[in-house]
Amino acid sequence: MSDQLLAWFKEHPDEFISGEEISRRLDISRTAVWKQINRLRSKGYEFEAVPKLGYRLVQMPTRLDEVSLLAKLKTSKLGHQLRIIARTESTQNEAAAWAQQGAEDGAVIIAEEQTMGRGRHGKSWHSPAGKGIWMSLILRPQIPLQFTPHLTLLAAVALCRAMKRVTEIELGIKWPNDILHDNKKVCGILTESSAEDERLVHVIAGFGISVNLDAHDYPDELKAIATSLKIASGKEIDRASLIAECLFQLEQLYKLYVEQGFAPIRALWEAQSITIGRSVTVGTPNGPVSGVAQGLDETGALILLGEDGCYRKIFSGDIHFTG
Amino acid sequence: MSDQLLAWFKEHPDEFISGEEISRRLDISRTAVWKQINRLRSKGYEFEAVPKLGYRLVQMPTRLDEVSLLAKLKTSKLGHQLRIIARTESTQNEAAAWAQQGAEDGAVIIAEEQTMGRGRHGKSWHSPAGKGIWMSLILRPQIPLQFTPHLTLLAAVALCRAMKRVTEIELGIKWPNDILHDNKKVCGILTESSAEDERLVHVIAGFGISVNLDAHDYPDELKAIATSLKIASGKEIDRASLIAECLFQLEQLYKLYVEQGFAPIRALWEAQSITIGRSVTVGTPNGPVSGVAQGLDETGALILLGEDGCYRKIFSGDIHFTG
Repeated sequence: MSDQLLAWFKEHPDEFISGEEISRRLDISRTAVWKQINRLRSKGYEFEAVPKLGYRLVQMPTRLDEVSLLAKLKTSKLGHQLRIIARTESTQNEAAAWAQQGAEDGAVIIAEEQTMGRGRHGKSWHSPAGKGIWMSLILRPQIPLQFTPHLTLLAAVALCRAMKRVTEIELGIKWPNDILHDNKKVCGILTESSAEDERLVHVIAGFGISVNLDAHDYPDELKAIATSLKIASGKEIDRASLIAECLFQLEQLYKLYVEQGFAPIRALWEAQSITIGRSVTVGTPNGPVSGVAQGLDETGALILLGEDGCYRKIFSGDIHFTG
Repeated sequence: MSDQLLAWFKEHPDEFISGEEISRRLDISRTAVWKQINRLRSKGYEFEAVPKLGYRLVQMPTRLDEVSLLAKLKTSKLGHQLRIIARTESTQNEAAAWAQQGAEDGAVIIAEEQTMGRGRHGKSWHSPAGKGIWMSLILRPQIPLQFTPHLTLLAAVALCRAMKRVTEIELGIKWPNDILHDNKKVCGILTESSAEDERLVHVIAGFGISVNLDAHDYPDELKAIATSLKIASGKEIDRASLIAECLFQLEQLYKLYVEQGFAPIRALWEAQSITIGRSVTVGTPNGPVSGVAQGLDETGALILLGEDGCYRKIFSGDIHFTG
């Protein structure tokens, strides 16, 4: 039904079509019309809605394509092996399969839409078509397993820098790797790694950046906790340019890490963090731990100073701000 | 052809059958007879060979079975979810698939034979039928990713203790987790872990213990570097008892680790090590590093003292003794 509706709008460019007319022609209720319009919106079609006049198709979804993205890359390696697909359950799963089949270090897969996008701790990640950057990066880093958390933190710094550069909005990192604007999440990172003994085999870094989502693209349960770069900056962002900038920052910081170790990454992370200095609580296998976040240790663990005057290290878990 | 030969031996228990007769009856060369006998030996059939008399079947392969193994377990958790299979490419692959399907923490899978057993760094692991313990243990430990190398070292200590207790032979650990008798490898451990960000999802610990292999069970290229508990101790070892002891030691040491951290495991590892005090060289992504092994640091890295008086840490790689 939305195909029929879409064809009709395409035949009448720049014209308003009233909800009443659509309702009559398609023999559906006015509520059903509104649902169909929203379904098309979720696929990246933009409609102007004017009372009495109806709906007008103002923009078709933009599609990422490999040729133009490759032309924008400023990296020497990351993203040069590139796949862009229309729709998948999860780019993490696609990348894992590709890694098994021999994808190179630095290979990137991007989907326009994820139907079962995954976030940290088994949570789902809202990934509507054409609106975001749903991307997985395959890495085969020559670093010991113990240092994997460094990569997670490095990725957060790189993406934060890239998004700031492209959008000029305020962004901050919540430990370890959520990126927030005004306390709402705009980007999530999920690093899935696989190791043999003390040696990393590969790392699949998944990035979910909510780029051009509008308020109506979010389900109700996310409206209070999530936002997009478009909502925050008030303007549409060119996804290809942002992808190129993200990969560039990742590559630059990884070079810095290989040359100088974790110390400069830690300093950059702390500088962009909204975690340091705040009261946080975190669930651990041994129960909740609270304290004021002091900084990172050399492994990437978060150091908390408790009310009892004791320092505690948090190696994993989701933190919650309590002050 | 070996089926026909086997049936013939079974019909004539305790009798010698000459190579010449076998050669005539099966219409194959004497060399082919010898190959068939060795094929049966590799499947766990034991033959006595006497010049002039020929071959006599003295023992059928022993089979592990779930009921008797479960009865021997002294653990509260490890191995209680148990699968024993006749033959597989690799118990690591079986375990990985099982972990995906929801195998419990502590689940164990054992194969009588592996056709493509895997060792460290993509090497193959010789796993003939009925002669060894080819076993994978699925763990879902509540520890941060950074501590995974602790588990690898802990496993080496546990297996070394179990094998010493059951066989009373001399054994020592080569960093990180090879177990040697008289400089020949008797047991290998391969820990494959999978993580999400800084959180372990599961660890699949693979154990290859060469228990009852005879010299003729080894291909030529392994004869100089590998041995078995039977060759070293001069007696057949009951595999089920050894499995039960391994799982018991693993569980005991893991409890110790959860309660007291890595320090006691490190001390036990160092006490059983044949690495400390020796000159070693190790290939790293940045080239070979040499020095005298001093001990482990708190992350499980091997500390080397170089000729230049500098201490260096080895996080991963295969070490070679040079003195």
